[in-house]
Amino acid sequence: MKALKDKILAEGTIIGSKILKVDSFLNHQIDINLFNEIGKEFKKRYANQEITKILTVEASGIGIACIAAQYFDNVPVVFAKKHEAANLDTDTYEVDVFSFTKNKTYKVRTSKKYINSNDKILIIDDFLANGNAALGLIEIVRQAKAEVVGVGIVIEKAFQSGRNVIEKEGVKVESLAIIESIKDNEVTFQMSR
Amino acid sequence: MKALKDKILAEGTIIGSKILKVDSFLNHQIDINLFNEIGKEFKKRYANQEITKILTVEASGIGIACIAAQYFDNVPVVFAKKHEAANLDTDTYEVDVFSFTKNKTYKVRTSKKYINSNDKILIIDDFLANGNAALGLIEIVRQAKAEVVGVGIVIEKAFQSGRNVIEKEGVKVESLAIIESIKDNEVTFQMSR
Repeated sequence: MKALKDKILAEGTIIGSKILKVDSFLNHQIDINLFNEIGKEFKKRYANQEITKILTVEASGIGIACIAAQYFDNVPVVFAKKHEAANLDTDTYEVDVFSFTKNKTYKVRTSKKYINSNDKILIIDDFLANGNAALGLIEIVRQAKAEVVGVGIVIEKAFQSGRNVIEKEGVKVESLAIIESIKDNEVTFQMSR
Repeated sequence: MKALKDKILAEGTIIGSKILKVDSFLNHQIDINLFNEIGKEFKKRYANQEITKILTVEASGIGIACIAAQYFDNVPVVFAKKHEAANLDTDTYEVDVFSFTKNKTYKVRTSKKYINSNDKILIIDDFLANGNAALGLIEIVRQAKAEVVGVGIVIEKAFQSGRNVIEKEGVKVESLAIIESIKDNEVTFQMSR
């Protein structure tokens, strides 16, 4: 997706050889025009697929999922909780997710009320790196005996193992920008995407 | 806002005499059609006001702010962080916020890059109870020497002190549903709103 790649090149900041900071438009400040383009592009990638719900995880996925849902006939969005929430139901689907960034395991939870066995779910998230967060969401959908239609990612780091991890589960990944490498303070995208 | 009040009456769950659970449409599962109505209503309440940015706090405020921004000429949304974020700038505006629900103090942070002294900011959040979260966001805007145009709230609990706290700061509060009381398992709204 050209507009997204241009934005990454214009505003992304590189830290070391692995971290791309995009908090000017994606996960701290949010560019609503770009999010609409992202939503349209997800719809293009999953055109003609029946999708009844979008599942994401707090916090950065929520804005992307909400704007994108408008291009999928306003299907409901469910965001899984990573943090203790006083009001969360006790009857939840839950998985342990290991975060390499934070070097710790956290629980991801979704109330059983909001995913059911008839649901056809599109999972959306901001980044795909090692794939643990997306894998956790797939596991939650499967606990609910619902169907995972696909995983839609804004920025994929192809030099980490996330895509393999997800595809091994038989799930299709669509990433709007795929980063081949981060080297010498420069981002290189995969040619074909 | 009638559609919102109807939804609260139809789907809200009461716990004790203070807690209203609305996670079927507001803060776990998200009703995108309703969020668009909410966005339109915020625009009505702040019509003819110059707004350059919407500020909210993770996590439940993000979806509301993103959808609402579409009715304010797609102004950028900034969401303040409540949780440690590996990639957050170290140069931040920050405040301590005491949460009565969790009985602890947490830090709310925003990178200095995304609020500046020319900004005219609409603060949006899902609930107004004791007002501490909104007050923290007002304080962040003032640290940046920007202007708070107003505070837009989806559900206000009028039996807690939030509105007084915010109005004492000279800031206008617009709440789309104002709950007078939660008694005998029944929600009563303020007549005039």
